[in-house]
Amino acid sequence: MNTEWIAVDWGTSHLRAWAMQGDSVRDQAQSENGMNRVAGGSFQAALLELIEGWLGKAPVDVVACGMVGARQGWVEAPYNAVPSSPVPHMPVRVSNTDPRIRAFVVPGLKQAHPPDVMRGEETQIAGFLASRPNWDGVICLPGTHTKWVQISANEVISFRTFMTGEMFDLLQGQSVLKHSVAEGWDDTAFADAVADTLSKPEQMAARLFGLRASDLLHGQGSGVSRACLSGYLIGAELAATRPYWLGQQLAIIGASGLADIYASALQQQGAFVETADATQTTLAGLRQAHNLTRQHA
Amino acid sequence: MNTEWIAVDWGTSHLRAWAMQGDSVRDQAQSENGMNRVAGGSFQAALLELIEGWLGKAPVDVVACGMVGARQGWVEAPYNAVPSSPVPHMPVRVSNTDPRIRAFVVPGLKQAHPPDVMRGEETQIAGFLASRPNWDGVICLPGTHTKWVQISANEVISFRTFMTGEMFDLLQGQSVLKHSVAEGWDDTAFADAVADTLSKPEQMAARLFGLRASDLLHGQGSGVSRACLSGYLIGAELAATRPYWLGQQLAIIGASGLADIYASALQQQGAFVETADATQTTLAGLRQAHNLTRQHA
Repeated sequence: MNTEWIAVDWGTSHLRAWAMQGDSVRDQAQSENGMNRVAGGSFQAALLELIEGWLGKAPVDVVACGMVGARQGWVEAPYNAVPSSPVPHMPVRVSNTDPRIRAFVVPGLKQAHPPDVMRGEETQIAGFLASRPNWDGVICLPGTHTKWVQISANEVISFRTFMTGEMFDLLQGQSVLKHSVAEGWDDTAFADAVADTLSKPEQMAARLFGLRASDLLHGQGSGVSRACLSGYLIGAELAATRPYWLGQQLAIIGASGLADIYASALQQQGAFVETADATQTTLAGLRQAHNLTRQHA
Repeated sequence: MNTEWIAVDWGTSHLRAWAMQGDSVRDQAQSENGMNRVAGGSFQAALLELIEGWLGKAPVDVVACGMVGARQGWVEAPYNAVPSSPVPHMPVRVSNTDPRIRAFVVPGLKQAHPPDVMRGEETQIAGFLASRPNWDGVICLPGTHTKWVQISANEVISFRTFMTGEMFDLLQGQSVLKHSVAEGWDDTAFADAVADTLSKPEQMAARLFGLRASDLLHGQGSGVSRACLSGYLIGAELAATRPYWLGQQLAIIGASGLADIYASALQQQGAFVETADATQTTLAGLRQAHNLTRQHA
């Protein structure tokens, strides 16, 4: 099997690699060696563990995006400031690698006011826009840290980050709510929780403990509570992003389960939403970045 | 030394005991054996470890409040429903104790709609009101789970719980913000964050990640970030409780540091705030509960 180049998505909690030939995926591998488990000199070892079987004698290009480009990462790939072209910026070469690879890391984006940063999503955005010339609108990328990104005239104009996913995980897993929020889901409870929070965002803080009390006093089921918790948090995010999504052309890039939840919340508000697969957009963006490294080689 | 009775405050994360003679504290002891570390049959052992030195041959009354009265506690002390007298309800006797003690647990309060519960704060409220006959107003009890309690015509009318303290701890200690929020404090940053959140509560969700980005991009100090995080969360709580505190007689019962932070946020909004010490009000409430057990003996 010929591996022409290797695409890598290296985030906080995961490491995923794809053996590519042109636009086609020949093989894939992943591990839990995200940025929060790998440090200092061990980045190359964590990667080689996944891709060693794909390597031959001639050096293969490896193009990575995500938190691996942070200051504490494999190589620092300094942020580019918005407004910025959504075409990826020139990836930064990692020095002194194993001779079987030539490794590059895609830089992230930064925004001075309000202060914000992204690493990884810029590559997904580039991949999404690659097949949609002159697309104007807003892209939502749900995840641990959900991003809302405004695209206009072929530029990333502005963006905002929300800790919605991380808050959900902390509240479900480690707060007093862990006794009442476990498995299950209820679509109606989610829709009601989103609508309640959007109409009275100032009441958000009062609602969370009610999930525990509703269980203790009324035996509210875990599925209803879990959907409510998600609805309160996503509702608060939609309240803050209303100018981003109201009356805008809207795309959601994410893993299917979470993207569907965001899409249903937005559709409920009358928004028209297109969804795109996170992996496909990541690969399309890394492909563009790889082309850049070859043009400059 | 004569120990006439023993007062106990047994919460989720702590166990504190006082050797009492009438209204006077003769000795005190505490441990980390809160409800989250003690289970099943080990409650008495955890308590005796602290109070053994205070016991003689004649049985001594032990009166406890807090989460120890939950279903998973030492004995279940069922909630009383609001509206309810702020005088403590009859404590529940623990059966089959060591012969040197007669142990009682104060019941908590519950509210059907919106669903809410408290255990421990009802005793502080009773202690606070014991020396203030005919006091009408609102009591705020800041902590891991902050309570806002409406008192009128000698009854607890309604209350709401906020997970503000727990959210602060989770976000500071375990989220991505842990890299940017550690030690320190900045009064101006706190005041601005409270005011921002109160005036635009719908923007709350957009602000949290900005603390990380402000550190990465502008080197914002940890003290400013920590004060902002507290200000955003307390601001969201004050936005939700506005009908509770606006134009009301207001008292804060809490440990001095946290009570002062809440007082400064409320004073900034023009509220007049009285503060009371958490330990003193707990002891005054437990004293009333102890008197009840003797009247019914």
